[in-house]
Amino acid sequence: MPEQHFTPVPLDKSYRLLNHGPTVIVSAQHGGERNAMSAAWACALDFAPPKVTVVLDKATRTRALVEASGRFALQLPTVPMAALTKAIGTDSATTMPDKLERHGVRLFAAPQLDMPLVEGCAAWLVCKLIPEPHNQQAYDLFIGEVVAAWADERVFRDGHWEFDGAPAELRTLHYVAGGQFYAIGESVTVK
Amino acid sequence: MPEQHFTPVPLDKSYRLLNHGPTVIVSAQHGGERNAMSAAWACALDFAPPKVTVVLDKATRTRALVEASGRFALQLPTVPMAALTKAIGTDSATTMPDKLERHGVRLFAAPQLDMPLVEGCAAWLVCKLIPEPHNQQAYDLFIGEVVAAWADERVFRDGHWEFDGAPAELRTLHYVAGGQFYAIGESVTVK
Repeated sequence: MPEQHFTPVPLDKSYRLLNHGPTVIVSAQHGGERNAMSAAWACALDFAPPKVTVVLDKATRTRALVEASGRFALQLPTVPMAALTKAIGTDSATTMPDKLERHGVRLFAAPQLDMPLVEGCAAWLVCKLIPEPHNQQAYDLFIGEVVAAWADERVFRDGHWEFDGAPAELRTLHYVAGGQFYAIGESVTVK
Repeated sequence: MPEQHFTPVPLDKSYRLLNHGPTVIVSAQHGGERNAMSAAWACALDFAPPKVTVVLDKATRTRALVEASGRFALQLPTVPMAALTKAIGTDSATTMPDKLERHGVRLFAAPQLDMPLVEGCAAWLVCKLIPEPHNQQAYDLFIGEVVAAWADERVFRDGHWEFDGAPAELRTLHYVAGGQFYAIGESVTVK
């Protein structure tokens, strides 16, 4: 069954999916191998073309897939996914090859892009790696250009997050440490 | 009068100040000139020594001060500072030399560091620029090493944010676009 709440986001609005600082899940695939890991250190980098940064430790299997394939996806887990998000940021496929199944991660393919995405998220961004070997080696810092984006239209509409009145189940997660997250909270609007 | 709620944070815990994705105000000084601007694109980069990234547009006066002095500070504005945060991210000292006074920004000096910090924030990180000319030119991306950090002990204690039960006035801001922010919300803890 395809992801139910999965609406395209124009590329020029895609930076807004990351602007409020959510924790992400990074997914990638190469040569038939797929993996996903959590990352608190992802950030928008540019508006047009939209670019992002994400920090990927050398010990992670997902990083190897990103380097081999030149592509990755960032997606925003929601409150019900907190335990899953912690688990796939802690366990590695290097030592636990079935970590996705074990932690209940369900994948689906991005339309026309053959990129694994994680079900149940609030938004998804597919990125093409912009190779920067020095950043990758010295800082574990990866830069990507966003080539496609989608969001759950119940909370992201007309280019804006609409979390006010949304149930906790649809809110993004913001990780601190030690299994502690915060959900995104109330809107504060300046005229 | 010194900042009242301003408690040192150990450097090995300082990444947690940025981990949940808050919008920051970037401050810097050089040759007697001080300035500050808002930035939604700041992120932790490493644990030890703690490092951060921040995106600073070439048109900003603050960037010139960072490049000239090799130092900057990141600080986390709170909900009552939303209008100020939007204003100093919109107006530039290049065309409005008194923008800080006009928008009600009050500065104080970081102890022993001669770095201007913004009153009323939830946390402050003073950073030494790690020069990376290619990143700065190609991506407007600056890397800094955190050399000192403080937080408001009413919301950050023993190395953890403690926002539950905190009033909106002490919560961090997470910018989207067009004057719209979200306050950080409720705690979600995974055992």
